Amino acid sequence: MAPRKIIIDTDPGQDDAFAILFALGSPEDLEVVGITTVGGNVPLSLTTKNALKVVELAGRPDVPVFAGCPAPMVKKLMTAEYVHGETGLDGAELPEPATPVQDEHAVNWMVRTIMAAREGEITVCTLGPMTNLAMAMTMEPRIVPRIREVVLMGGGFFEGGNATPAAEFNIFVDPHAAHKVFHSGVPVTMAPIDCTYTAQMTPEWLGTLRATGSRAALEAANMAEFYCQYGDHKFPTRARPIHDACVTGYLLSPNIYEQRQCYVTVDISSSETIGMTVVDWWHVTGKEKNVNVLRRIEPAPFFDLMLDRISALP
Amino acid sequence: MAPRKIIIDTDPGQDDAFAILFALGSPEDLEVVGITTVGGNVPLSLTTKNALKVVELAGRPDVPVFAGCPAPMVKKLMTAEYVHGETGLDGAELPEPATPVQDEHAVNWMVRTIMAAREGEITVCTLGPMTNLAMAMTMEPRIVPRIREVVLMGGGFFEGGNATPAAEFNIFVDPHAAHKVFHSGVPVTMAPIDCTYTAQMTPEWLGTLRATGSRAALEAANMAEFYCQYGDHKFPTRARPIHDACVTGYLLSPNIYEQRQCYVTVDISSSETIGMTVVDWWHVTGKEKNVNVLRRIEPAPFFDLMLDRISALP
Amino acid sequence: MAPRKIIIDTDPGQDDAFAILFALGSPEDLEVVGITTVGGNVPLSLTTKNALKVVELAGRPDVPVFAGCPAPMVKKLMTAEYVHGETGLDGAELPEPATPVQDEHAVNWMVRTIMAAREGEITVCTLGPMTNLAMAMTMEPRIVPRIREVVLMGGGFFEGGNATPAAEFNIFVDPHAAHKVFHSGVPVTMAPIDCTYTAQMTPEWLGTLRATGSRAALEAANMAEFYCQYGDHKFPTRARPIHDACVTGYLLSPNIYEQRQCYVTVDISSSETIGMTVVDWWHVTGKEKNVNVLRRIEPAPFFDLMLDRISALP
Amino acid sequence: MAPRKIIIDTDPGQDDAFAILFALGSPEDLEVVGITTVGGNVPLSLTTKNALKVVELAGRPDVPVFAGCPAPMVKKLMTAEYVHGETGLDGAELPEPATPVQDEHAVNWMVRTIMAAREGEITVCTLGPMTNLAMAMTMEPRIVPRIREVVLMGGGFFEGGNATPAAEFNIFVDPHAAHKVFHSGVPVTMAPIDCTYTAQMTPEWLGTLRATGSRAALEAANMAEFYCQYGDHKFPTRARPIHDACVTGYLLSPNIYEQRQCYVTVDISSSETIGMTVVDWWHVTGKEKNVNVLRRIEPAPFFDLMLDRISALP
Repeated sequence: MAPRKIIIDTDPGQDDAFAILFALGSPEDLEVVGITTVGGNVPLSLTTKNALKVVELAGRPDVPVFAGCPAPMVKKLMTAEYVHGETGLDGAELPEPATPVQDEHAVNWMVRTIMAAREGEITVCTLGPMTNLAMAMTMEPRIVPRIREVVLMGGGFFEGGNATPAAEFNIFVDPHAAHKVFHSGVPVTMAPIDCTYTAQMTPEWLGTLRATGSRAALEAANMAEFYCQYGDHKFPTRARPIHDACVTGYLLSPNIYEQRQCYVTVDISSSETIGMTVVDWWHVTGKEKNVNVLRRIEPAPFFDLMLDRISALP
Repeated sequence: MAPRKIIIDTDPGQDDAFAILFALGSPEDLEVVGITTVGGNVPLSLTTKNALKVVELAGRPDVPVFAGCPAPMVKKLMTAEYVHGETGLDGAELPEPATPVQDEHAVNWMVRTIMAAREGEITVCTLGPMTNLAMAMTMEPRIVPRIREVVLMGGGFFEGGNATPAAEFNIFVDPHAAHKVFHSGVPVTMAPIDCTYTAQMTPEWLGTLRATGSRAALEAANMAEFYCQYGDHKFPTRARPIHDACVTGYLLSPNIYEQRQCYVTVDISSSETIGMTVVDWWHVTGKEKNVNVLRRIEPAPFFDLMLDRISALP
Repeated sequence: MAPRKIIIDTDPGQDDAFAILFALGSPEDLEVVGITTVGGNVPLSLTTKNALKVVELAGRPDVPVFAGCPAPMVKKLMTAEYVHGETGLDGAELPEPATPVQDEHAVNWMVRTIMAAREGEITVCTLGPMTNLAMAMTMEPRIVPRIREVVLMGGGFFEGGNATPAAEFNIFVDPHAAHKVFHSGVPVTMAPIDCTYTAQMTPEWLGTLRATGSRAALEAANMAEFYCQYGDHKFPTRARPIHDACVTGYLLSPNIYEQRQCYVTVDISSSETIGMTVVDWWHVTGKEKNVNVLRRIEPAPFFDLMLDRISALP
Repeated sequence: MAPRKIIIDTDPGQDDAFAILFALGSPEDLEVVGITTVGGNVPLSLTTKNALKVVELAGRPDVPVFAGCPAPMVKKLMTAEYVHGETGLDGAELPEPATPVQDEHAVNWMVRTIMAAREGEITVCTLGPMTNLAMAMTMEPRIVPRIREVVLMGGGFFEGGNATPAAEFNIFVDPHAAHKVFHSGVPVTMAPIDCTYTAQMTPEWLGTLRATGSRAALEAANMAEFYCQYGDHKFPTRARPIHDACVTGYLLSPNIYEQRQCYVTVDISSSETIGMTVVDWWHVTGKEKNVNVLRRIEPAPFFDLMLDRISALP
């Protein structure tokens, strides 16, 4: 079977970098058609540079990178340097990218690529605020029925939020974009923090990753060490979720995820809960189910697979 | 030490009945100054009759019962016969009460009693929608600094809601009342479903309760059997939380509860999340902590104590 | 025909005083059964004292005054000393009242009086935040079908608001109370600022009032002079609306008001529009009409009548 | 002085057609750089065709027309065939356009044109939902400081709304877009219905227009006759506002408009008031003024000018 064609929309971010390396290390399963960037964890100029650094680290400068929207559809941009450091990839020492960013706007390229592909050929993976995809759907609604599936890292329900008590960062940054996508009719699979918290990266695993000897693995381990410093208020050990990588993991090995089809909406009304993914896990509303919600991951096969794939890179 | 003086504000409901019996079976620790009723699980006329039935079942017709508000402050009343049956106490066969309800309105009696007591003498326990207490605070704000503590069953955060995906029933029915109390400045202890789900009543325990031979225990077990029928979509076995009883348990044995002081507010803005208790468990907002949030209960001592106290009744 | 029985619920305020004097000067038409006070223009202790001063100024210390709720149902109290002065009746020199306030809480008295009266006998006039009436309806919903009509000063639509761009002061202070009353099913007549702005009190008219020689007229003119100082940013001359008096005017002479039955609700969701009376003047929503909205007053007969009635007082 | 360069973003609609003809008939003052279309009064396929018909009617097929977004940023599209007829230009008999729509997406062309122009060179006039402009600002925020002024028809305050009691159609259809533009920092001039209602087109004026003999004038009069049928519930005669034309009028003759700089926001929270332009006309919020609000127009010079300019077309 031909590898699955994906667009990765991202705001790297160390965990974005893991997700991308994990995907690029899996060419037998995934064809990364292109990478689009968005303002999120850090501003757009940095997320774009970081995406270029990561494809070069993976030895894949042929994967085109397109810069997208610097800020959300309605709200002002909020960033998260307190997690990711000033560069967004603090911890790793990666050279300035030699490859240039593409000229075309990410949103336009996304529209053009999906319209040109066969119906159901392209999967869109969003690892940051969902601005670019929602913009593409607004620019050209005919892409909606052509997308195979949107797989996103974002949201939370039984774990609450992390940006606010109710809202997870990616959705909180651009709740209107998420609302648009969730209610567009496109098949959506969501990896909320309820899912990502169940697969925590340990210092031991990072040691194993580092020991594989590949440079990609080494730098991934380096950036993970910075990234794992944040979160002591919440996590009892230095083990940490590696959020965005759960998207790649789902594409490669969906069977190791617990899943439930649910009605999900995004609050865009209340100052207390804006950006919250309201997940009807127990189906009490009776509303039509629109999202495949991922919950528990089996950590062992997940980390085994990620180790295998990242260390396969140069 | 003299027993702690409590007002029980309630909408029985089988789990309210457990909470009341648990309290009335503990005269060495708790003095139930009076019981006030509110429309909630079933309409006010039934919750009032049920409160009278329960005090008579406990052999305590001397405990006065006051009828309060039939419906919430702003919203229309919503009831839950799908859980509690048409009477609210389905399962038990209790005679029509011989004791009359008091003439005074519950809200007025609450105000009068708190104003007449010493400062810090009275604890108010709410087991249903918080309408009566919020009304009392609006009628006479000077009661606020005179109340020792408000202990309530209501809300949810990491467990989400049960009336809606975001809101627990008691808070959802009268979110404005809960908002009022939570932001009044009174010391609040909240037993959300995150707490109550951790102490589930099993058929085995109900068998033991029944075997104690007291009529109160027998009828409590009878009503519990009806009550435990609801919830199969959520709970894998017939074990069920006995929500309101967690309030009494906390008063008697606070040490068996995990507790954390948090900022908590109630959403009263969004149609998606109205009635949600937004609990800042990780203290990300930096706002002043206003609620003592109960979380895990040790089930064994909790059920041992409740067995002991309910079976001490006639 | 017997005079119409009214309860005046008020937060005096100079314009409240005009409304009360106007009513007390019309014993052939209106029987003021009692006056209830609420925190609003100034705190409750002052509005209560002011109500007592006004009934004494009218030579009617027999009209009982009952103190009600010091603050709104859900929000914190906001007052308007910038309009009314520190006392609420700045401008007049009125002696400390000799008559005591009644012992009973205004809300309880309101409930008791309406329940004791014949169905449809009592009209409730609210001149401030609608807290007391909404509280009474929550305490005892059976009053709703017994009330003949609620006539209120509050809200605005084509004139916008005065407390915020969208909300008029009385409704803004307790929007939840207004929401409750408007949706209770009781017949409601609303005098919004769209109505009150069309009958502006001029310095000339105040001169005529003063010249009538009655002490009530004189002190009314004195307080009006203070009250008319505020508003230069909005009104081109010193002529000013005398808001609350429009309620009395409507009771006495409804024919001089333009009226339209409309669907009206109160926003209680948005930080931008909370407290706004959303008036469906053009009936675009198709929702059931629940409020008689007053609009234009013919100023000449209005001021002639008020002059006549206030100067009839001692 | 060189004519002012404008982009007209529009959803024709008969009044849009007047605005466009008015502008195209004023080449000495206005250079219409291009016309962009949006879903609004009728779906995008029709608004685009209508824009082409109008430029051809004006004898200006050289003015490029770009199709934009078919639906709003977040909400579903709502259209207004009840006002404009099924085609959007009912009343006129215009041939199928011979000129094709441009290939480029309106949003992209808008971004490219503004970025290529001198800073402050381009004025953007929006006559429909503000989707395209808000999308352009999201795609490329650097356009914001390059735009000379945004002049829009939309909103209402003292006249309330027309789509709902609180919201005017253009803003109601895409409130999030309007919110984005109003808070972007760009200079905004708004012609709300408070403005447009003050310049009503009469049957007499339409007769004069028709009598000028130009075909553009004749067809404009034809479509106006259809358009003026709607509104009998609100307007006492057949005279009607010709909303969008007020934007062109302002560009040509700003002195005939009353204007006030105000703080304006758009409600995007409440189901009752979503899409309302909250205009702080009396500056009670103290917030920074961000919009030049147009109010009264002198009708005589406005209609004289429009007559002159439209009849100058072939």
